[in-house]
Order: sequence, then C-alpha cells, then structure tokens
Amino acid sequence: MKLSDCTSLFKDGHLSLYRLRYINREGNQSAWTLASREKAGPKCMTGQLGSADAVVIVPYHRERRQLIIIREFRVALGGFQYGFPAGLIDPGESVETAVCRELFEETGLTVVRHLRHSPVVFTSSGITDESVVMAYVMCTGDPSDSGNSASEQIETHFVGPAEAERLCRDHTILMDVKTWLVLSGFAAGGFVG
Amino acid sequence: MKLSDCTSLFKDGHLSLYRLRYINREGNQSAWTLASREKAGPKCMTGQLGSADAVVIVPYHRERRQLIIIREFRVALGGFQYGFPAGLIDPGESVETAVCRELFEETGLTVVRHLRHSPVVFTSSGITDESVVMAYVMCTGDPSDSGNSASEQIETHFVGPAEAERLCRDHTILMDVKTWLVLSGFAAGGFVG
Repeated sequence: MKLSDCTSLFKDGHLSLYRLRYINREGNQSAWTLASREKAGPKCMTGQLGSADAVVIVPYHRERRQLIIIREFRVALGGFQYGFPAGLIDPGESVETAVCRELFEETGLTVVRHLRHSPVVFTSSGITDESVVMAYVMCTGDPSDSGNSASEQIETHFVGPAEAERLCRDHTILMDVKTWLVLSGFAAGGFVG
Repeated sequence: MKLSDCTSLFKDGHLSLYRLRYINREGNQSAWTLASREKAGPKCMTGQLGSADAVVIVPYHRERRQLIIIREFRVALGGFQYGFPAGLIDPGESVETAVCRELFEETGLTVVRHLRHSPVVFTSSGITDESVVMAYVMCTGDPSDSGNSASEQIETHFVGPAEAERLCRDHTILMDVKTWLVLSGFAAGGFVG
C-alpha cells in the first residue's frame, strides 16, 4: 500500500474533507475520503500523526470519590449525549493546559493532579485522522455551567460503580464509546488512575 | 437547542458530509458540519440513532488465553495502526452475524461464544454520527489473512497483559483509542468478558 496524492474537497471552521489516492496491495489505483480536523492537509501528508487534535478527560473527584461525566447537547446527534469533558487543544497549548482549561470551562471543576496520559491515539481511522490524548486527572470543586459557550449546553454528573453499570446497560440514552469503555471498566473493577 | 434543517454537501461510497442548521441556546441560528456513514441523511434526521454502523470486536482466544488485536494499513493515516477487528454491518445483517463474519474475514479466527455487547455508542460525535457496538467474544483457531480484501492488509497479534502494557506506553506506534482503552484495562486487571 502506498499513498500517491491528496485533494481537498471541502473546508469549514472545524472540519475538512480530503481524498487520498493510493496504490492497493494488488497494484491498483484506489481512493479514500476522510474527514479531518486539519486545515493544511491530512496528518499523514503533513507529518502531524504525532500531534493530538483534542483531549478527552477522565476526571476522578478527590472528595466525592466518583468519576465525572457530562451530558451535553451534540448537534451531530441532535440530542444529549453522555461523554467525558473534552475539547480541542489550542495552537501552541500544552496537553496539561488544555485539560485544565476544558475541564473548568465545561464543568467548573479544577484539576488537582494529572494522573496519566495516553499517547496520541485515533478516534475512528476508517473515516477520520482525528486524534486525541486520554487524560486521567484528579479534580476538586463544585460543578458549574457558567463557562459554557453559546453552542454548549452541559450538565455535570457524578458516577459511582453502580451508576456506571446502570448507564452502560441503558439502551435508551446516547453515549460516547470511550466513555462506555471507561465506565464499564469502572463498574467491574473501580478506578484505575 | 433545536435542529432546523439539513443540507447534503458531499457523498461517496463510504462517507457523506451534511450541514445541520440549529438554533443555539441564545436563540441564534448556527450550523454544524458532520461526516456520516449514512447515505439517506444524518441519523438524527432519519430516526436511525438506535442503529449501529459497525461492530468493533474484542476477541479473547479460548486456548491461548490472550486478546487478539490487528495491525492494519489505514489509508486515512497512511500507515499501519493497531486496532481491534471491526467492520460495517451489512444491510439486514444482525450484530452477531457481522461479528462472526468480520472476525473471520480479518483474522481467520472463529467465534465460539458471544460474551456481551455494548448498546449502540458513538465514536466521535463532535464530527460524526458514526455508531458502533462493542462486541466481546471468545474465539478459537489459527490466524490467517486469506479473507482480506484488496484494500486490506492485516496482521493478527496475540496480546497478554504485559504486552498490552508495553503497547499502551509506546509513543512510536499508531493505535485506535478504543483499543488503547481496552488494552490498558487488560494490562491493569485482566480480561473482563
């Protein structure tokens, strides 16, 4: 398999569409369309595969000893989805700073300790080169939605293992897959920070 | 927040692009672009939020007592990514049948038991309404790539907890976020099927 060239099909403020041409393993020319957060070209063409678009935060509350999840309006789903606090890393911003900023903006909570970060990992490489860092943190404070922007509408929820188990079995709610995976591990074995 | 209407911006064989218009919580008209697997319109407009586009398979090998992951060429990343066997559900196909078919096509392994399925969950709702079911299965057999299509190039790997830990810390490889989350749980606490 070998990439040959790339065409830009569409761009707006938060999403670009590219067509990559490649030679498949039988030697035939083929093409693949992908969505991207990148404005300058897909990460594989610009050498940016090692950089994260966004942080996804797994916050454990120090005093409440519970995980934090949010219930947030997602335009793409036309409804409220359960997920972790998350957001794009600003240009030049460190992962740590983005984590503290996004957690505070979305929930009003304050990071007291960074526990561990994943390497840069990819959210769904069949259709996008979007990449994230999973950031596990200890946090404190009381939830507030005063930092939400006009396009955000966010509730903060505290979740213990029994509530995590209940949410993971609920077919009537919308949930992000990363959140489902962490909550089902938490339900089975507690928090691994 | 309230959706008003939807425009189709682009379509090809595996990806569509839509623009949703909505009223934000300050009462202003806004727009959001999303990528979708759906050809008839985004799931939130067609009432398909409860149906999964794809299965993502977490296979545990009965005799080897190890997890299976694949190393697969991903055009969107221009390189090889570690991930779980996965694939689109054919029209009219059940989740169970898709799981057995995709696992066999991608790895040559045979499902002996379905352990548990997640509800339909969303891969990255900031940019797409793509949805999956996480399917945990027990499998058997010897790996083979003879079922790979021309656009697929797949190696099958067996992973125990120590190897899972090593892969999860490796910043030099490409890995899918779902796989990272399951492997890091497996490294910490073994397999929860």
